[in-house]
Amino acid sequence: MRITSVTPEDIRFPTSRNLDGSDAMNPAPDYSLTYVVLGTDEGTEGHGFTFTIGRGNELCVAAVNSLAHLVLDLDVDEAFAEPAATWRRIVGDSQLRWLGPEKGVIHLAGAALVNALWDLRARQLGKPLWKLLSDLSPEQLVDCVDFRHLQDVLDRDAALDLLRKAEPARAERERELQRSGIPAYTTSAGWLGYPEEEVRRRVRAGLEEGWRHFKLKVGRELEDDRRRVATVREEIGPDGVLMLDANQVWEVPVAIEWVNAVADFSPLWIEEPTSPDDVRGHARIAEGIAPVGVATGEHVHNRVMFKQFLEAGAMAYCQLDACRLGGVNEAIAVILLARRFDVPICPHAGGVGLSEYVQHLAMFDHVAVSGARDDRLVEYVDHLHEHFVDPVRVEGARYLPPARAGYSAELDAASRRAYRFPEGSAWRAR
Amino acid sequence: MRITSVTPEDIRFPTSRNLDGSDAMNPAPDYSLTYVVLGTDEGTEGHGFTFTIGRGNELCVAAVNSLAHLVLDLDVDEAFAEPAATWRRIVGDSQLRWLGPEKGVIHLAGAALVNALWDLRARQLGKPLWKLLSDLSPEQLVDCVDFRHLQDVLDRDAALDLLRKAEPARAERERELQRSGIPAYTTSAGWLGYPEEEVRRRVRAGLEEGWRHFKLKVGRELEDDRRRVATVREEIGPDGVLMLDANQVWEVPVAIEWVNAVADFSPLWIEEPTSPDDVRGHARIAEGIAPVGVATGEHVHNRVMFKQFLEAGAMAYCQLDACRLGGVNEAIAVILLARRFDVPICPHAGGVGLSEYVQHLAMFDHVAVSGARDDRLVEYVDHLHEHFVDPVRVEGARYLPPARAGYSAELDAASRRAYRFPEGSAWRAR
Repeated sequence: MRITSVTPEDIRFPTSRNLDGSDAMNPAPDYSLTYVVLGTDEGTEGHGFTFTIGRGNELCVAAVNSLAHLVLDLDVDEAFAEPAATWRRIVGDSQLRWLGPEKGVIHLAGAALVNALWDLRARQLGKPLWKLLSDLSPEQLVDCVDFRHLQDVLDRDAALDLLRKAEPARAERERELQRSGIPAYTTSAGWLGYPEEEVRRRVRAGLEEGWRHFKLKVGRELEDDRRRVATVREEIGPDGVLMLDANQVWEVPVAIEWVNAVADFSPLWIEEPTSPDDVRGHARIAEGIAPVGVATGEHVHNRVMFKQFLEAGAMAYCQLDACRLGGVNEAIAVILLARRFDVPICPHAGGVGLSEYVQHLAMFDHVAVSGARDDRLVEYVDHLHEHFVDPVRVEGARYLPPARAGYSAELDAASRRAYRFPEGSAWRAR
Repeated sequence: MRITSVTPEDIRFPTSRNLDGSDAMNPAPDYSLTYVVLGTDEGTEGHGFTFTIGRGNELCVAAVNSLAHLVLDLDVDEAFAEPAATWRRIVGDSQLRWLGPEKGVIHLAGAALVNALWDLRARQLGKPLWKLLSDLSPEQLVDCVDFRHLQDVLDRDAALDLLRKAEPARAERERELQRSGIPAYTTSAGWLGYPEEEVRRRVRAGLEEGWRHFKLKVGRELEDDRRRVATVREEIGPDGVLMLDANQVWEVPVAIEWVNAVADFSPLWIEEPTSPDDVRGHARIAEGIAPVGVATGEHVHNRVMFKQFLEAGAMAYCQLDACRLGGVNEAIAVILLARRFDVPICPHAGGVGLSEYVQHLAMFDHVAVSGARDDRLVEYVDHLHEHFVDPVRVEGARYLPPARAGYSAELDAASRRAYRFPEGSAWRAR
């Protein structure tokens, strides 16, 4: 099977109209996809995307075109015979690399291509991605990972050891997964743009649906935030779990002061308290707010940054993003790093399509890497799933495993037409 | 004066033909500029650029177009009445920010615009940029800086203190600068693609021109590298200064081992020993190779990263890049951070146009921030200066101060036509 075409599309959903997704740093996002279809000589397609929040999505589309020559004409079996080399080929072009390296637009676009390749591979083998990964041997899994710049903390042999330790339990973990899925938390109730009473109404609705873990956006005025935090704690009671998300707005000392000022409401974590590049700042915050944990990752741009956050004790919950990282291969690297430091994988989702992606990564982690653990919480937002051919299934606050072959990335054809920017009907109608 | 047009151009020089600029990570760069001209209602233009190494330059051009609406129609006096807010406006658009934040293509493009704005301002005031900055009061200088996410290490007041301490000596520093410029080092002799005898020939030629500081690219086979290092040391004698540059190719333990294996040749620094994102790795290397220093910065993407490198003792020489950082405002922030930790500013140059830019920043540092110091070495490569309207003047291994108003960014009109990609004559002829 050979790749004969690489076709990116600019897909945008006008979510800023309702302030869905609003937070302290991102007041009005239009959730968007740089969507890629890989065509092959056998007719099977690979679908993948990267996620952005509106303006600038055209740059990721352009970057996919700039990278396309690295994927075009690839033989799929050959590409997956040496998966780390294939990954390095896509993210390591010596001239394009200057634009990152391994960060920003060029890495986001690389993720779309890498993810589409894995979707194609999973379809070719007739398995959902989580199952494909969970069936690989420890040797095959480490062959997917580029260990460059990781080896002071995790090298191939150490990663192999971790995977071999988990191997005997794989069958039992998979039965558990099929039986009851993996736990999720909801962000749908607590967007910053929602008035307090809307938050209360949504938390109550969530409790009725069986949710126990709720995330609230914070980062405006402290008093205002305290009131919102109190409202959620009041509604969910002492047994509910409350997470907070500041979306990068604080200075390091302000973050410490702020979190300690709401510690009486016992939040599980504070997410993105400051700049996502600030490893040392996060470590200082982690020290200053224990036992509240620091969660971060959605803007942590590559495995070298995760290595540092994890080793520094600056990340108690690893919120990897399936698009910010360079696709599946780098996500595997980060899952192994997190296992090395016994930090749970709690992937970033929401947006559009992110839940569809990350469920596969978290399920692979459950089956083949870190095993059963209740602190592996996958974010869930009840939004925009209806546009996907194989949408997530979340029941009783748990993600249930996808059965369909692929990486769940494919959009409905009608949605692709309607939300194409700027010519789709959803945008023409504005 | 109001900005009435923002016009980017894709300019590329086919430098890969001769392996000029070759190193361990970048074997065949085509030095390129995303070149921007700001037009105004008064006719004065602002010129600026960001630097890339070839493929992908089109993405920075596209990103300038995506950012243009943030600059178009700006009143120049108003923009410079609140320079930090203007900077934040350009790098902080809430949707475009997702593509970084403050890194990669979107930040490189922001730098082109910010630098063009400063070029325009300097022309409007009739001063070269170094002089414009050196004439600003401490208060005006800190007003240029966005202190967000820096304040655990350097806030506005602490920065003001540093600048005020340097203020009484400004006049004397400026006289020194006019008299004898600031010291430089040369990279022209030691590209990795050059055979050993070519390196020897070039070092000899450099010595005859008055150079005493030479940088050599390393990072291939240790034995091969040792031979090249020995050659340079042999030629420059015990009083010459030798720097090494590995361009990111090593793992942390390999870097330590390698540098210690050439320590007998007494290099001043090892540059980019590993991933440019790896603050903790650089700190570990710095500990393991003292008294050899670690130099890095050309791929360090924003002030938050510099804050960490400097505070961690992971950067003994601060090689800021005028384009990787978000232009002049963020360069001022980094110069202040370096001053805070008493680390010399040794900017990244070479490429095309980088020397023209960074001389202004280093001269500003000399006059108004860190004062006279012989360890402030500005990189120099004798290459492509002939395309600029106001090229650098380097004599006796020292940069002499530009006299012409602006930021020395303007290309000759004929060069702009000839190297326009892909339609210019230099590319059509291939």
